Amino acid sequence: MKNTFNQDHFEAEMRQHFDNLQRDLKDPVVEAAAYSLFSGGKRMRPRILQLSYELFTDAGVERCRPFQFALEMIHTYSLIHDDLPAMDNDTMRRGKPSCHIAYGEATAILAGDLLLNLAYETMIDACLRSGGRQPLEAMNVISRAAGASGMILGQSQDIAFEKRESVSVAEIEEMQELKTAALFKSAILAGAILGGSDTAQQELLLEFGNKVGLAFQIRDDLLDSISNEQELGKSIGKDERDNKKTYLTVQGYEAATQRLAELNEEAKIILFKLEADGLDTYELRQLTEQLETRKM
Amino acid sequence: MKNTFNQDHFEAEMRQHFDNLQRDLKDPVVEAAAYSLFSGGKRMRPRILQLSYELFTDAGVERCRPFQFALEMIHTYSLIHDDLPAMDNDTMRRGKPSCHIAYGEATAILAGDLLLNLAYETMIDACLRSGGRQPLEAMNVISRAAGASGMILGQSQDIAFEKRESVSVAEIEEMQELKTAALFKSAILAGAILGGSDTAQQELLLEFGNKVGLAFQIRDDLLDSISNEQELGKSIGKDERDNKKTYLTVQGYEAATQRLAELNEEAKIILFKLEADGLDTYELRQLTEQLETRKM
Repeated sequence: MKNTFNQDHFEAEMRQHFDNLQRDLKDPVVEAAAYSLFSGGKRMRPRILQLSYELFTDAGVERCRPFQFALEMIHTYSLIHDDLPAMDNDTMRRGKPSCHIAYGEATAILAGDLLLNLAYETMIDACLRSGGRQPLEAMNVISRAAGASGMILGQSQDIAFEKRESVSVAEIEEMQELKTAALFKSAILAGAILGGSDTAQQELLLEFGNKVGLAFQIRDDLLDSISNEQELGKSIGKDERDNKKTYLTVQGYEAATQRLAELNEEAKIILFKLEADGLDTYELRQLTEQLETRKM
Repeated sequence: MKNTFNQDHFEAEMRQHFDNLQRDLKDPVVEAAAYSLFSGGKRMRPRILQLSYELFTDAGVERCRPFQFALEMIHTYSLIHDDLPAMDNDTMRRGKPSCHIAYGEATAILAGDLLLNLAYETMIDACLRSGGRQPLEAMNVISRAAGASGMILGQSQDIAFEKRESVSVAEIEEMQELKTAALFKSAILAGAILGGSDTAQQELLLEFGNKVGLAFQIRDDLLDSISNEQELGKSIGKDERDNKKTYLTVQGYEAATQRLAELNEEAKIILFKLEADGLDTYELRQLTEQLETRKM
């Protein structure tokens, strides 16, 4: 049962899980959270977690599902709060009105809070049901990546950089490592922990996650500039207008595409090392290639 | 070592803990989170957790500290987000400018997110260090109370009620049970779990927590009407202006004070039952009386 990330199954199971945990499905905040969570995301972080997990075990997805759900909830909460007028002021997301456009600002703030908290309710429940140290360690990895040593610190730097005249490439990479790559890394590490990897494998996977996360972000920034709203499902050209500091806005198109190719190359080299260790990295290689050329 | 909630020790240890977990203490979002967390709150929820814990054990506070910190972080994050312009639009909190007044809205949103996440980082770390099932169960109780079956659902109802013409007393009590009492109940239950209580004791303590939580909220609503800003440290008279539905705004002063006295009476009766079970409830009784007459 290798490499079985089936998005339809994932969507149905996450919906079931979400509904089960609600006391009042008709509450506007609960509705708003569901609106944003179930709106056709790429589910990249859950996908990576599962591919990493399945490098090490054939035990089936039940064990990693709660952590996949949690990652997507954390990612979605960060999008809802990022889109708020006081933050990036984005009116479109995943091809639909942003959460605060559809439900109002107060409800959107609470819907984000709900999803972050629900991510933990979900993982804690998994820890209580399964016992053992691995689920707790996976939750720890995800919580560190989501917090002030990871994503939130990256978002803070991102905001601070908007107000600065110039920012170095090293600063941009550090910010993007925190803002985006940290959660990618936690996805791949949590999967590896749940699957039963050893420490050397985890080190390599972390490096891989970092490369792929940075590449993902550069591709995101490129798409903001070269795509159109219909295909991308969100506003475009905003980085330039908002004085966002990205690889693209600071270094230009050529340097950005070159860095993207470089990161993907480095990611694939790490996969060779893991393959030499006896792991079947076919699906991760496919994913890396998809990320390089993705249109949304 | 019974009944030793020392606020100075608590403050110093929480500060140390907060600083230890930060990657960048100079980051504006981290600063804003610290500004709100260390601004002289009453620390009511950590206090209750510890008093409950010490009903059952003399083992010292090290074991319950992380959960006390987490509760205060969750409470503080909810205040930061509640005070935002899109929510209650409060400009004063704990005698100082609200977080978004001092640091701007974007930073305040992220500071709230940081504190919620940090609460979980804190508890997960405690679970990893101590092992055993009790810390995980305490974290579970707190996470359910903070989420869409507790505080967040209560906040959502609170907002929805503002727009309604009339709300029944039963609806107000349900909303306040979720918005305020749920976290009080989780404090007392988490303390009891960590201290090693039995199920019958936990049932009684949950009832007690519910009464005290509701009483706390009614006193809060009374203070909003009868106190002054200097003493209270936050804006007053807002409930009436904002069309908030509270026991006081809907039922009037006399009914509210009567319900407050009634709840405190019921809370003390539960303490008698716990005393009959051999527990020393002196400190919880003191606390109940303080809550009834508190000025801030």
